[in-house]
Amino acid sequence: MLLDQATPEQLREWESQLSQEYDAIVGKKLNLDVTRGKPSADQLDLSDALDGILDGNYVAANGTDTRNYGGIDGIPEAKRLGSDLMSVPADNILVGGNSSLTLMHQTMLTAYYFGLSGADSAWKNIDAPKVICPVPGYDRHFTVCEQLGIEMVTVPMTATGPDMDAVETLVKSDSRIRGMWCVPKYSNPTGVVYTDETVERIAKLGLIAHADFRVFWDNAYAVHDLVKSPATLASVFDLCNKHGTADSVVQFASTSKITHAGAGVAFVAASTTNLNGLKAFLGACTIGPDKVNQLRHARFLPNRDALMGHMAKHAALLQPRFDAVLSALSSAFDGTDLGNWETPEGGYFVSFDTRPGCAKETVRLAAEAGVKLTPAGATFPYGKDPEDRNIRIAPSVPSVDEVVGAMEVFVTCVKLASVRQALTR
Amino acid sequence: MLLDQATPEQLREWESQLSQEYDAIVGKKLNLDVTRGKPSADQLDLSDALDGILDGNYVAANGTDTRNYGGIDGIPEAKRLGSDLMSVPADNILVGGNSSLTLMHQTMLTAYYFGLSGADSAWKNIDAPKVICPVPGYDRHFTVCEQLGIEMVTVPMTATGPDMDAVETLVKSDSRIRGMWCVPKYSNPTGVVYTDETVERIAKLGLIAHADFRVFWDNAYAVHDLVKSPATLASVFDLCNKHGTADSVVQFASTSKITHAGAGVAFVAASTTNLNGLKAFLGACTIGPDKVNQLRHARFLPNRDALMGHMAKHAALLQPRFDAVLSALSSAFDGTDLGNWETPEGGYFVSFDTRPGCAKETVRLAAEAGVKLTPAGATFPYGKDPEDRNIRIAPSVPSVDEVVGAMEVFVTCVKLASVRQALTR
Repeated sequence: MLLDQATPEQLREWESQLSQEYDAIVGKKLNLDVTRGKPSADQLDLSDALDGILDGNYVAANGTDTRNYGGIDGIPEAKRLGSDLMSVPADNILVGGNSSLTLMHQTMLTAYYFGLSGADSAWKNIDAPKVICPVPGYDRHFTVCEQLGIEMVTVPMTATGPDMDAVETLVKSDSRIRGMWCVPKYSNPTGVVYTDETVERIAKLGLIAHADFRVFWDNAYAVHDLVKSPATLASVFDLCNKHGTADSVVQFASTSKITHAGAGVAFVAASTTNLNGLKAFLGACTIGPDKVNQLRHARFLPNRDALMGHMAKHAALLQPRFDAVLSALSSAFDGTDLGNWETPEGGYFVSFDTRPGCAKETVRLAAEAGVKLTPAGATFPYGKDPEDRNIRIAPSVPSVDEVVGAMEVFVTCVKLASVRQALTR
Repeated sequence: MLLDQATPEQLREWESQLSQEYDAIVGKKLNLDVTRGKPSADQLDLSDALDGILDGNYVAANGTDTRNYGGIDGIPEAKRLGSDLMSVPADNILVGGNSSLTLMHQTMLTAYYFGLSGADSAWKNIDAPKVICPVPGYDRHFTVCEQLGIEMVTVPMTATGPDMDAVETLVKSDSRIRGMWCVPKYSNPTGVVYTDETVERIAKLGLIAHADFRVFWDNAYAVHDLVKSPATLASVFDLCNKHGTADSVVQFASTSKITHAGAGVAFVAASTTNLNGLKAFLGACTIGPDKVNQLRHARFLPNRDALMGHMAKHAALLQPRFDAVLSALSSAFDGTDLGNWETPEGGYFVSFDTRPGCAKETVRLAAEAGVKLTPAGATFPYGKDPEDRNIRIAPSVPSVDEVVGAMEVFVTCVKLASVRQALTR
C-alpha cells in the first residue's frame, strides 16, 4: 500500500475494504489496553521475595539501624546497588525513596528555585529559563516543566538520539537554555539507544552552555535489555569527567521496572556540587528515605550479576510481547508509506509515526474498536504533537495473545485513518 | 535554692560547691546523648513483624496490586489506619510515603508557589507572607519556612497551647498572615495538650483570617500517651466543620514513632479542596507512594484497638525514662527559682526553661561533662531563643540508667550556670 502513488479509485476501494474489516473488529467488542509502561503481574512476581527478605536483620553492613530516622543520602549497600545499575561510583550516588520521578522533580525544583550550586545559580533569577525536550519524549518530564512554569523547547529525536546539531545551536544561541531532558537508553518512547557520539556531544555541552545548565539524564532503562547482545550506552559520567563538565549532567534511575514498580528504590548520580545542592533541599523536606526498603533491595540484588540475571527473567517475559508488536508492524507496513518505527532492543515502548495528521484519528478508531492507546500527543509538551503523527505502544501488561489482538486492530486503524485522509486531498 | 533572695556570700559558696561537683562529673568522662526525639531499638523491635507480614499476598482489599504503579492518595486500608490514628474520616485522608515532614513541606510549598485552591491562592502572590510559629516549637517546621523564605512570627506557647489572644490579634491585624504551625498534642517540645478552648479558637481562625490562611496541624503524637487516662485532644476537624472553616486546617501524622521511624507511612487529613490542591502538586512529583509498605502497616495495625495496644507497649518502655527526667527535675528544682517545666503525659520531650540567659551556658557545660543536649535555641526560628532559656530533653533513646546519669549532669549544670550568672549581676 503506497498511498502517495494511489489513484482515487484505488483509495476508494481500499477505504471500502478497510471499513468492512474495521466494522468486523468493532463487532468483536474487544477490551484491550496497550497504554501503560508498567510491568505485568508476572514480572512483579519475580521480586516477591522482597517482603520478608530481611529475616529480622534490619542492620546495614556499616551498623546503621535502618529502622530509625536519618541518612539523607541512603545506606552504603543501596549506593552499591545504584552503582551496579548506573555504572557510576557509589560515592556519587544518593539513594532516595520509591520514585525517580520524585528525585527528578526535586532536582529541577531545586535548580529552579534554590539553585544546585548556591542561590545565585537558581534558574528563577532570569526571565523565562528554558529546557530542551527531545520529542517524542516522556510526558511526565514535560509535566514537571509545565508545573514549574519552565518553557520547553523541542528538538527532534533521531535514530542516534536527540538531533545534536539542533541542541548545540540552541545552547550556543540562547543563554536562557538551562536544562535538557534525556532518556538515553531505550528512549521513551522511541526505544533508541544514544550513540557514543551523541553521548560525547552531550557531555561536551557543559563547555558551551551556561554554568547553570543541567542535563537531566533519566536512565530509566539502564539494564532493561530485550536481546542478548544489546547496544551499550557510553558512560556520560566518564565523558563529563574527561571534558571537565561533571556538574552539567545529573543522572537518575530506579528499581521500579526491576523489582516492584511502586515500591522500589530510586537513585541520583551526580557530582559532589550537585549532590550537595540537592541534599540542601532534601534536608528541609525529610529526615531521610526508607532505609529498610533500601536494605531489602540491596539484599535481593547483592551484585551486578544478580541484577543482570534478574533482568534476563524480565526479558523472557517481555520479548514475545515486543515481537508481537514488531512483527505486526513489519508485515503490515514494510514497503508502504503508512508509517515509520524503530526496533527497540529494550525498554517498554514501541513508537510509531503515522503519516502526518493521522495519529489522533488512529487512536480514536482504535478506542471505538475496544483498544486503548496512549492519547496521541502525549509524547509532546502540552500534549500537542505539531504533526499529529506519534503513537506510543506499550505491550508489557497484556498477554501475548492480547498484544496480537491489539495490533490487528492497530494496523487496521492506521490503514483506515491514512486512506480516509488521503481521500480528502 | 532561691537565687533572687541569695546574698553574694551564699552565691559564692554555692558556686564553689557546684564547681566541685561539676569537676567530679567531668572526671567521670561520661558519653550520654539526650538530643534525639527518636525511638529506641527496643521500641523499634516492637514492629519487626512488618517485614514478611504480607506472606506473598500483595493485593489490597479492593483488588489493587500494591506492587505496581499508581494510587496517588493511598490504598483504602491505609486510609483506614490514618483514620484510626487521626480520628478523621478515611475519605479525608491521603496516604503518602515514609515522612510526614515531606507531606508538610509539600503542602506548604504548594500553598506558597502554586496555591492549595488554585493559582490565585498562592502565597507568593503577596509580598512577604507570614506564618505564625508558637515558641518554643519544632525546629524542622521552622526550617521549612526558612527554606521557602517565609517570614516567621512567634507567639508564646502556654500550658493551654499557643497564646490565642496573641494569635487572634495577629490574624486580625496583619493580612499577610497566611499560616500557623501547631503540634497540638504533646507539643514539641513542651509536651502540652491544647485545651478544648484553644482547639475551638484555632478552628474559628478561619472566620477572621485571610481565605488562604492554613493551620499546619502536625499531630505527630496523636496516640503517643504515657499515662493510662491521658488528656484528650478535641477534634479540630469536627470543630472546623461546625464553624464552616474546613479549608483552614490541614492535619498531618505518621507511623514514624509507632512502627519503624524511618520506614513508616505518613498521612494528610484535610478538606477536599486542600486534598485536591495537594494532589495537583503531587501528580507532577510522583506516580504514587509505596503502597506495599502501606499494606504492611494496615495489616500490622488492623484496627484502632490494635493500634492502641501497640502504643501501650511503647509507653511501657518510655514511661520510666520520662519518670527519671521528671523526678530529677522535681527533686532539684521544686521550690527554687532556677527553672520551669511542664509534666508531659505523652510525646517525646521534656522542655525546661532556665533563668533568662542560662540555656546556652547549661548546654555548653553539659557537653563538656559528656552529656549532649539539643543546642540551645533550636526550638526557636533561626535558632535564636531571645531569652536564651529553653532546653529540650529527649530521653527515649538512652537506657533508664543513662537518663538518670544525664539528669544528674543536667541538674548540676543548670545550677552552676544559674549561680554563676547571678554572681555577675
